[in-house]
Amino acid sequence: MSKHRFELFSDGVFAIVLTLLVLDLRVPTAHGLRALAEVWPSLLVHTGSFVLVGVFWIIHQAGLERVTTFSVAGIRWNLVALFWSTLIPFAAKNAAERPLESLGPSLMAASTGFYILSMLGLRLSVHSTLDDTPELLRWRARRFTVFLVLAVADLLAAGLSWIVPMAGYLAVAVVIGYVLIASHPADVERRMRGAVESGET
Amino acid sequence: MSKHRFELFSDGVFAIVLTLLVLDLRVPTAHGLRALAEVWPSLLVHTGSFVLVGVFWIIHQAGLERVTTFSVAGIRWNLVALFWSTLIPFAAKNAAERPLESLGPSLMAASTGFYILSMLGLRLSVHSTLDDTPELLRWRARRFTVFLVLAVADLLAAGLSWIVPMAGYLAVAVVIGYVLIASHPADVERRMRGAVESGET
Amino acid sequence: MSKHRFELFSDGVFAIVLTLLVLDLRVPTAHGLRALAEVWPSLLVHTGSFVLVGVFWIIHQAGLERVTTFSVAGIRWNLVALFWSTLIPFAAKNAAERPLESLGPSLMAASTGFYILSMLGLRLSVHSTLDDTPELLRWRARRFTVFLVLAVADLLAAGLSWIVPMAGYLAVAVVIGYVLIASHPADVERRMRGAVESGET
Amino acid sequence: MSKHRFELFSDGVFAIVLTLLVLDLRVPTAHGLRALAEVWPSLLVHTGSFVLVGVFWIIHQAGLERVTTFSVAGIRWNLVALFWSTLIPFAAKNAAERPLESLGPSLMAASTGFYILSMLGLRLSVHSTLDDTPELLRWRARRFTVFLVLAVADLLAAGLSWIVPMAGYLAVAVVIGYVLIASHPADVERRMRGAVESGET
Repeated sequence: MSKHRFELFSDGVFAIVLTLLVLDLRVPTAHGLRALAEVWPSLLVHTGSFVLVGVFWIIHQAGLERVTTFSVAGIRWNLVALFWSTLIPFAAKNAAERPLESLGPSLMAASTGFYILSMLGLRLSVHSTLDDTPELLRWRARRFTVFLVLAVADLLAAGLSWIVPMAGYLAVAVVIGYVLIASHPADVERRMRGAVESGET
Repeated sequence: MSKHRFELFSDGVFAIVLTLLVLDLRVPTAHGLRALAEVWPSLLVHTGSFVLVGVFWIIHQAGLERVTTFSVAGIRWNLVALFWSTLIPFAAKNAAERPLESLGPSLMAASTGFYILSMLGLRLSVHSTLDDTPELLRWRARRFTVFLVLAVADLLAAGLSWIVPMAGYLAVAVVIGYVLIASHPADVERRMRGAVESGET
Repeated sequence: MSKHRFELFSDGVFAIVLTLLVLDLRVPTAHGLRALAEVWPSLLVHTGSFVLVGVFWIIHQAGLERVTTFSVAGIRWNLVALFWSTLIPFAAKNAAERPLESLGPSLMAASTGFYILSMLGLRLSVHSTLDDTPELLRWRARRFTVFLVLAVADLLAAGLSWIVPMAGYLAVAVVIGYVLIASHPADVERRMRGAVESGET
Repeated sequence: MSKHRFELFSDGVFAIVLTLLVLDLRVPTAHGLRALAEVWPSLLVHTGSFVLVGVFWIIHQAGLERVTTFSVAGIRWNLVALFWSTLIPFAAKNAAERPLESLGPSLMAASTGFYILSMLGLRLSVHSTLDDTPELLRWRARRFTVFLVLAVADLLAAGLSWIVPMAGYLAVAVVIGYVLIASHPADVERRMRGAVESGET
């Protein structure tokens, strides 16, 4: 199974999910600067959801960059992952209209947790061997564990949101923070390969 | 006619159809866990329609994976197939708002039946010879027959839905079950090729 | 300028325009078969507009299949062509809600006329020389003239629609008929090349 | 990081943003030519926003045409740039419904300014060396400066719009004019290379 349609289809879904978020922004009724005051909370939710879907895309791109062929199981895991990402605009709409109700943050944390779990399933199904050095394999295994912990934490937070809505927002923010701060596989590879080459001299 | 635009255009349509389904999810008015109770029926319809369009995509991808050039007739069959897939969000909206009315399940079964028929027409128009072994050709012919039977059953169920709405839902569920359980052409090829190679030793 | 982004971007727009048409289909209020009676006029408009956008895509694909690099002027002509295709969902919405008002058919015919003109401009800007035989070049020149006549006829019909709304629908139907019946460049090339090769023997 | 997904994802977003603009066009209630009179202001806003997003696409395509690999920083800059382009449909909706309110033009100018700044950040992060001649490098540096000035002007105009709404529209029009009139990198390269080759003879 070639990579081309896999990426085509997934990126189509991500691009649309990202853009649908804007459909719920409404023209304010107030005038002058008060119009900005009326509109900024939904702009903030739009920005947050955009960043979350952007992080989903980075996880997808980083995880599959070095993979070139996919098994049939991989196709199914990918569809499951895309399913969870299509729920984000609905979760965001709930969070924008009723930020302190449990449904919005709970759905957001649950979608994020299940998205990460599906990506880990997809990752296990591709058996990429490639030309990875032992260091890289160790790094990848550690990254896999961190994502597993993050996913479980998000699912717990999705349940906890029904008591404390803030839990859902917090768990999603932790995932965003980790993906934006942690090293990207491409960086790690370059760094490690550089180290190996210097070491050989 | 090259494969590139064929896939680009089709995957664009599938990706949008998948994502449009979420636009009809409405923010509930109830509070706490009752909000979840209010929203879960439409979430269920969303999930079901997502799986159906995902199955449409798998049929498209699996059927055309080994094909590299398309005739002019193929382009037209593909447009007809895409047309039926664009009706799914409307059928799903009907099923979500009025699940026991005939229109929703009938339209869903009819779209699925005509989609499969168009894909069979597309498949016949591409004359892929490739390097198929006789076993593979036999397997492909059997798969073609199964899909033909499924398509006819779905069209009959689309008519029957006007008396028993459940018929439409059932016929669509059978297609989903078959595609998810049956072997993917890529698996079969690998297995058969493996058998041939072992046999040669 | 390479072909890749050109096709990516254009097919993205076509795929979305095709799919947006379905957003205007409304769940009927009548029961049983009367629900079908209520919904079929908008299903018919959806089908007609789908076919029209499908024809736009075929014109785009057939015209640029053998072209591999684009000038800067080509990019601008393409954006103009895509602009006219984005107006089709709006023209279709007008035609569906008020079929005998002039605005719908006039906008549909005008968009079709200007779309074809932009595609002819795009075609002139790419200077494809390729390996065309004199017969093929003559065939292409004749096809160019037919499209020019069709475009002018559609623009005239767009004006006439303000007196006789039917004129717009008719002019668009003629374009659809021509594109679906006329030979596709890929067919003509194969046939002519075949003739040349047979003639050389 | 390869170019493929980069372009796939970005073009998906641009294609959807372009097409979403049409969703806000409403079927007029007046009859005959008065329907056209009722609809033309929103058609004008649609056209203007289409041209603006088209210009965003040209900036993206022209800036990254010769680049083949992207750093991790590049991915993030690109997401930021896409974010600003998703705000255009909302800014356009504001401008269409309340053209003399500050919010629409201010948001439009701010999005344009920040989009250009993100593209400059993306451009700085890719370190394209390629086979550029010194003249080309000088030309690129000059172009970079012009875009920086345009971006700053748009951000100032976004602030000024709260006093004089026209400022926002004007600043965006200047960007559109510059991109459509100024030379495209592909043209400049060809011209300079031609000059070098002639000079060598």
